[in-house]
Amino acid sequence: AASEGIEVVLVGDQAQIEPVVAAEGGLPSGARVVHAPDAIGMGDGAAREVRRRRESSIYRGLELVKHGEADAFFSAGNTGAVLATALVVLGRIKGVERPALAAVLPLRRGPTLLLDAGANAEWRPSHLVQFAFLGSTYMRIVFGIEEPAVGLLNIGEEATKGSPETIEVHRQLAQSQLRFIGNVEGGDLVLGDADVVVTDGFTGNVSLKLAEGMATMLFGEFRETAMNSLRGRLGGALLGPALRGVRGRLDYRQYGGVPLLGVNGTAFVGHGASDARAIANALRGAAEVADSGLTGALAEAVRAVPAPRTSDA
Amino acid sequence: AASEGIEVVLVGDQAQIEPVVAAEGGLPSGARVVHAPDAIGMGDGAAREVRRRRESSIYRGLELVKHGEADAFFSAGNTGAVLATALVVLGRIKGVERPALAAVLPLRRGPTLLLDAGANAEWRPSHLVQFAFLGSTYMRIVFGIEEPAVGLLNIGEEATKGSPETIEVHRQLAQSQLRFIGNVEGGDLVLGDADVVVTDGFTGNVSLKLAEGMATMLFGEFRETAMNSLRGRLGGALLGPALRGVRGRLDYRQYGGVPLLGVNGTAFVGHGASDARAIANALRGAAEVADSGLTGALAEAVRAVPAPRTSDA
Repeated sequence: AASEGIEVVLVGDQAQIEPVVAAEGGLPSGARVVHAPDAIGMGDGAAREVRRRRESSIYRGLELVKHGEADAFFSAGNTGAVLATALVVLGRIKGVERPALAAVLPLRRGPTLLLDAGANAEWRPSHLVQFAFLGSTYMRIVFGIEEPAVGLLNIGEEATKGSPETIEVHRQLAQSQLRFIGNVEGGDLVLGDADVVVTDGFTGNVSLKLAEGMATMLFGEFRETAMNSLRGRLGGALLGPALRGVRGRLDYRQYGGVPLLGVNGTAFVGHGASDARAIANALRGAAEVADSGLTGALAEAVRAVPAPRTSDA
Repeated sequence: AASEGIEVVLVGDQAQIEPVVAAEGGLPSGARVVHAPDAIGMGDGAAREVRRRRESSIYRGLELVKHGEADAFFSAGNTGAVLATALVVLGRIKGVERPALAAVLPLRRGPTLLLDAGANAEWRPSHLVQFAFLGSTYMRIVFGIEEPAVGLLNIGEEATKGSPETIEVHRQLAQSQLRFIGNVEGGDLVLGDADVVVTDGFTGNVSLKLAEGMATMLFGEFRETAMNSLRGRLGGALLGPALRGVRGRLDYRQYGGVPLLGVNGTAFVGHGASDARAIANALRGAAEVADSGLTGALAEAVRAVPAPRTSDA
């Protein structure tokens, strides 16, 4: 990332960072280290606690963004801790009820945004309506899609399908100025026409991980099947590069990071298993987003959301 | 199915059935037609209405089961109409709060049961606790798995993850006599160790359709990639049979039908796109389930569910 001109700030325990940097031959040009003595582990759970740990690398890193000393924040660490701390340090964009994690699925038809991918386990219809506006704005600003097609993940195509909550979201989105294409079912998430698929953080998180799991399972089955016979090994040798191309294109590492939409500043989280390529891509993505003026555009988009009815607010 | 000794009863409009049967050279041995003048279409929505249509093929077919004139019912038609009508005609097993659709995923590790796959869009923790007992009993009776491993679909592995509702389900299952292996995430649904994965009907339906959509997408990408070059076509020709074997093994048609667990009788629903193979497999599956004494075992299992706390009931 640094070789592409991104000024990287490594936030963490200096004593742990220094030997790693030394082993790599020193910091790349433009990079620096900001010391943070505390580290939040992957198992450290309660939001109430972690968001108060002001010495943690997550807290310190987000503070850099808040104070304008960094343009964007990325962590492949504890997602829940990033969410909780970002709410405290950066705060929400005015009018945003709940920020959402917005995962880009690298599908053949083009990038498709799934949100909420897991920031909130509980939700109200007004949250999902806002997610539609946030997601639509993201795809317009970051991916240049003029009028993104927005779908609502649901268990049937008709407007009357789903829970009373999804029916209410459908009603509100159908009346909005967004290009709402209606309900989309599980399969349509990967085979359909939506640029933005809106759902609650529970369903979104399960869906994202299931899609990754299915890809892992199927590629694993192909590999194993190909190794089972001489014929298969020969076919696999011929087809292997092309299959790896498909695998690479569908790989989550292509985007590497998932933005937290709705906080005051650019914050990305990454897969705990992120490798160098995934993290470099995430830093590149976060830098682009920070340069795009997205936060201002999101604030404007949220002002355009029709006020929910009192019973729903 | 008839050639394997299953006595098939075709329920529907006799005037429409007869020419089809004639074109096939007459009814197979043991088969008969029961006339039902009314047909519920795929778009006919409201449960309140469709469940009163006593002349419909769904109503008549379920009545045959109720009156002991058939051992099992199968429809590849309107799933919502089957659910609503089954509740009216067959009723629930004593103690069952909500019946659930239980989809068998034909995974490499073995069949894995996902329930609820879409019978209920709304739910309470006590419903999911019952689903765990129903699903565990199904895998024991129908697939002979002595002590099925039961997982709760959730957005994190720790017991504290998820919504207050899933946390409560986790608490109750951890105290039950089931072999509860804890929370499973989206990817674990296809890569993990659970024989039974419990979730709400919204998440379950989205997951099932997403898994099918991912398989369709990936096989489509492989085919297209293979066709793109001479090398790919050659590799595809060599690897094709093996890949089709994987596709066939993962195919929903392998099981063809999804039982509605918790009603008083054997009722299966199938994919609207079911072909002859899928329907024959579904009839075979339904016949095996009817012979297995499952309904009695489910009644017994539900009696073993700890009574939910009043606040949760």
